[in-house]
Amino acid sequence: MAVASRKLTQTAPLGASAGRSGQARNGRTEIDLGVLDEHLGYLIRRFQVWVFQDFIRTLESIDIRPAQYSVLVVIGANPGLSQSDLADTLGIERARLVRLLDRLEKRGLTRRLPSPRDRRSHALQLTPEGQKTLKRAKTLAATHEARLAEKLGAESRKAMLGFLREFWR
Amino acid sequence: MAVASRKLTQTAPLGASAGRSGQARNGRTEIDLGVLDEHLGYLIRRFQVWVFQDFIRTLESIDIRPAQYSVLVVIGANPGLSQSDLADTLGIERARLVRLLDRLEKRGLTRRLPSPRDRRSHALQLTPEGQKTLKRAKTLAATHEARLAEKLGAESRKAMLGFLREFWR
Repeated sequence: MAVASRKLTQTAPLGASAGRSGQARNGRTEIDLGVLDEHLGYLIRRFQVWVFQDFIRTLESIDIRPAQYSVLVVIGANPGLSQSDLADTLGIERARLVRLLDRLEKRGLTRRLPSPRDRRSHALQLTPEGQKTLKRAKTLAATHEARLAEKLGAESRKAMLGFLREFWR
Repeated sequence: MAVASRKLTQTAPLGASAGRSGQARNGRTEIDLGVLDEHLGYLIRRFQVWVFQDFIRTLESIDIRPAQYSVLVVIGANPGLSQSDLADTLGIERARLVRLLDRLEKRGLTRRLPSPRDRRSHALQLTPEGQKTLKRAKTLAATHEARLAEKLGAESRKAMLGFLREFWR
């Protein structure tokens, strides 16, 4: 694998004190990313963190984070779903899902009803309050997605969606 | 945003007990992803987790994880780099980077020398052992990247790299 020659150019953040690290931080520091620039995993991770930060900011007013949003969307689209099917679908560990559902239930957004098919299982549902919150969340998430399309380019966003859906097929 | 009609089809994992969740788990359960299927963030996150899991498995024999790999690569490409420039470049919080460097130093892979420019700063370097480990890590990481190209399609991988580099430009 060839060492990438492209550089990541940094500018000092506003208000950073010059010379803090002993370098000319009021100017520009060029750091070579090396082979990282050739690794899809590295670039995907940085991008994913950026996307999640934007999503979290956008839904801050209704206090819904990415994993909570996923859970609400999938319960909303599949009322009566079991916890284990929800965990499998989202790739969330069972213990983490239980904590997520505990918090959503405490906020009055979801509920666990006894399963009509299995006494050891639950059927998950949104409460009316949960449905209202999900509706608001979807509206806000759509503005996040529009900003992403603007920043990435609508065509690039569409192409990436296509590659990723194909990957999971 | 339109509700997606595409479904994620799950098959029961090998050895899963049929009927565990009260559904026909020996068959197929169709769960509707709802609008998640339209969110790049959701698909990117699932993909990123898959890529990291493959990377971790691939480099398990030398016990190097993704963040450790990034740190070794960037120090290797920029000997004498300061901790704060490394943190900025990788988007890692200072406290987390300190813990990462503590562990790499304890393993004899990196060292913090006094900066020639600033007494409060350090100049980071790989030890000879660190250079050897990085070389092995790069070889393993290249096989991971080749597997990714195979699974995603070489053209799709290349296109995604292009979009992501463009995003950070």
